[in-house]
Amino acid sequence: MTRTIDLNCDMGESYGAWTMGQDAAVMPWITSANIACGFHGGDPDVMRATLALAKQHGVAVGAHVSLPDLQGFGRREMRVTPDEAYAFTLYQIGALTALARAQALTLRHVKPHGALYNMAARDAMLAAAIARAVRDADAALILVGLADSALTRAGIEAGITVAHEAFADRRYEPDGTLTPRREPDAVIHDPLIAAAQVTQLLEHGEMTSRTGAKVRIACDTICVHGDRPDAASFARTLRETLAREGVTVRALADPSA
Amino acid sequence: MTRTIDLNCDMGESYGAWTMGQDAAVMPWITSANIACGFHGGDPDVMRATLALAKQHGVAVGAHVSLPDLQGFGRREMRVTPDEAYAFTLYQIGALTALARAQALTLRHVKPHGALYNMAARDAMLAAAIARAVRDADAALILVGLADSALTRAGIEAGITVAHEAFADRRYEPDGTLTPRREPDAVIHDPLIAAAQVTQLLEHGEMTSRTGAKVRIACDTICVHGDRPDAASFARTLRETLAREGVTVRALADPSA
Amino acid sequence: MTRTIDLNCDMGESYGAWTMGQDAAVMPWITSANIACGFHGGDPDVMRATLALAKQHGVAVGAHVSLPDLQGFGRREMRVTPDEAYAFTLYQIGALTALARAQALTLRHVKPHGALYNMAARDAMLAAAIARAVRDADAALILVGLADSALTRAGIEAGITVAHEAFADRRYEPDGTLTPRREPDAVIHDPLIAAAQVTQLLEHGEMTSRTGAKVRIACDTICVHGDRPDAASFARTLRETLAREGVTVRALADPSA
Amino acid sequence: MTRTIDLNCDMGESYGAWTMGQDAAVMPWITSANIACGFHGGDPDVMRATLALAKQHGVAVGAHVSLPDLQGFGRREMRVTPDEAYAFTLYQIGALTALARAQALTLRHVKPHGALYNMAARDAMLAAAIARAVRDADAALILVGLADSALTRAGIEAGITVAHEAFADRRYEPDGTLTPRREPDAVIHDPLIAAAQVTQLLEHGEMTSRTGAKVRIACDTICVHGDRPDAASFARTLRETLAREGVTVRALADPSA
Repeated sequence: MTRTIDLNCDMGESYGAWTMGQDAAVMPWITSANIACGFHGGDPDVMRATLALAKQHGVAVGAHVSLPDLQGFGRREMRVTPDEAYAFTLYQIGALTALARAQALTLRHVKPHGALYNMAARDAMLAAAIARAVRDADAALILVGLADSALTRAGIEAGITVAHEAFADRRYEPDGTLTPRREPDAVIHDPLIAAAQVTQLLEHGEMTSRTGAKVRIACDTICVHGDRPDAASFARTLRETLAREGVTVRALADPSA
Repeated sequence: MTRTIDLNCDMGESYGAWTMGQDAAVMPWITSANIACGFHGGDPDVMRATLALAKQHGVAVGAHVSLPDLQGFGRREMRVTPDEAYAFTLYQIGALTALARAQALTLRHVKPHGALYNMAARDAMLAAAIARAVRDADAALILVGLADSALTRAGIEAGITVAHEAFADRRYEPDGTLTPRREPDAVIHDPLIAAAQVTQLLEHGEMTSRTGAKVRIACDTICVHGDRPDAASFARTLRETLAREGVTVRALADPSA
Repeated sequence: MTRTIDLNCDMGESYGAWTMGQDAAVMPWITSANIACGFHGGDPDVMRATLALAKQHGVAVGAHVSLPDLQGFGRREMRVTPDEAYAFTLYQIGALTALARAQALTLRHVKPHGALYNMAARDAMLAAAIARAVRDADAALILVGLADSALTRAGIEAGITVAHEAFADRRYEPDGTLTPRREPDAVIHDPLIAAAQVTQLLEHGEMTSRTGAKVRIACDTICVHGDRPDAASFARTLRETLAREGVTVRALADPSA
Repeated sequence: MTRTIDLNCDMGESYGAWTMGQDAAVMPWITSANIACGFHGGDPDVMRATLALAKQHGVAVGAHVSLPDLQGFGRREMRVTPDEAYAFTLYQIGALTALARAQALTLRHVKPHGALYNMAARDAMLAAAIARAVRDADAALILVGLADSALTRAGIEAGITVAHEAFADRRYEPDGTLTPRREPDAVIHDPLIAAAQVTQLLEHGEMTSRTGAKVRIACDTICVHGDRPDAASFARTLRETLAREGVTVRALADPSA
């Protein structure tokens, strides 16, 4: 049984004159930063600053690739072809890679954003295109996707390392899907309960779903939401609680390797 | 005296459903392709196809980086800060690098486009930012700029290789600047005369300006305009004439190294 | 039985430095121009020039509204909310209206483009939002949509005039849908056969489908494709043949009223 | 001597998922809202919501037109031609007009934003193009520009009403220009002092510059900055103080006319 976990968070989603999130406050408590690459948020200046912030805190950096939809923040599904997804995934990874390399940083992972994440979790063709793009950019990159989804399967198929993502602050249904946000208890507000959910996951490979039934969930990395008002304190308490429980919180790959 | 010259051309400036240029017809006759990176033209799909075309013809590939102005095709000057230029230059180089690497291609050069090219030729601060971005992306990249301009000086200052660019099909003034396009004899229409201008440049390091006075011009690479109606036949005749004159036409760096 | 028909064509789809279509050659033969509004093609300069061209030929002008997807040319379906569609439809109609008014032109119709057209033909909620936007922009505007579709129904429901669109150069299936383009006989290449299909439609309210079975199709306006290589000669022959057959070819609303 | 003044503020500069400004808190205290039109901020949804907010408070609405530069928030100068400026000004006015009309609102004014405002204050050709666009959109629109600038002169030349804008919270130089922001006393932090500056302006047509020398400034409208942290309380105190001093605070044109 592994007692190691990565805490990842979406970062660098400001754009031009607009700020979003609490990157500086959250960065100290996470181990992997998914950095927006200009398609749903982020611009070259924001990307550069976010990389510097991650470097300062020894946080592993990865590309948070998205559909090309700035106004919709990458949250609106678009019918893109696998070839289009392959090309724009490479484009975004490359853009961030060059800005990272200029700061002597190496990208460690790629995690699709928003609608692309959801589409790739269920569409095998799209997932395969993204996985190939990640592999062709750098076969050492880790592909982060919804646990046991079409995307993680595509990554395994493409011969790259995948990381199964689970959520500490979301309730699960007995079938392993997330309880929809419209349900009253969809979100877990107490970081101690969230930490307990993670600990259970690490010890038993399962969590207790909304109905009480146990559900098996693979989990290599936990998504910390940076957009909740208490994001920084939530992340801090989650991390400190996990540490107290003897869990090693560290990035999927050594950020400084 | 060097008897070697590179022929470069702007490529991959189509965008989405819109096509521009005669890339397939011109590519066989050039040795370096400056590939648009999505800021003035080009999109991830077009970039990928243009890289494949260059690979097929053994043409060296480089990034044709631009101001962010799609509607203006990168031809409108914008007051960007050196920091902004540094970041968006890295962004564009990186995006193309990843798409190139996926085809086992290595970028060989970077050439600013349009208004950015002109601004960087005279603005030392902007030029320095671009040169640093090129160096930080990959110190082996060659920076292509207007011959003996602020940009080539900045590249030398940054410790990277620069290539001085001259124009085969444009007339020069005695002070070394290009004869403005509004003048009747600004453009050289006969590829044989263009070839003679190049040969003179290679043999004597100078060309005969519009007034007949000789002007010294450094020249490592010749810009072949891909947007003239006879672009392909012009490029072909230029290249074949140079070859007959004993000039070796080859890329600045070995494309397959 | 009406013996009057409108011939509409998508126009003004150039963008910045990129040209598309043969607007100047096709404009003389049509009666309604659907002008792109900057979301899939067109920009303020192109819109202005296209309006001037339409005015010169006495062609009625309308807004060709699209999903916000320049790279995809508005052809990729996006999951937009009805509220988003309402707002961006008004935005685009308004932008073109101001440019038209500056030339003393009045918009006569609105026709969704590409993926938005297809989505609105089957999605009643989306169609209702578009119809309300058209009505709220100007209740005198005519909403052009696929004949007998969710969009034309929504227009009728909203209390505005609708125009049912049919295709002269496409084959139909017995169920009234277009024969898919992958089928060998999907496109009608001979303008005389296309004209005969239109005449049959006007006289009998039906056309002969691919299988020979008759199918009833409402038809107030015929879409002339501007992107076929022979667009201008096709449009001209179609129009002249219809005129010879006694059909009055004129805009849905008087362009100069 | 006029004892009437308009208080205008830039509004609706949020974009997609990003929020900017404190529109809901500031709107009750101003009389004219300059609403972003999508080129530097704002999108169709934001524009619609901002119009509704202005309507609720009886605030006059106008178009805050910008250079096309979302990432740069319209603050980077771009070398656009007068024809381009004419067309994109009409485009933006029209887009907002349609969204306003759908809420039974009429645009009252147009104020260029950021770099376009500054460029139009000194460039007569650019200013003339903008003034013609405003006139051609609706000759009843009021053009708001820097007091006694090339832009207000162009508006007068074009035969439309202009409004000279001055700043309540900025110090002036003896030559009538604003004290640069890098100077320690460039910004007036106390709304009572700002109100006194406005009262002096209304009573005597002049204000006391940084050096103590009097400077004559035309003034029909006062810009209230919505991006200062205390924007709402500043605007409220300014307005209430002016009212106490017997100044009538009202829009340039009756919002409900």
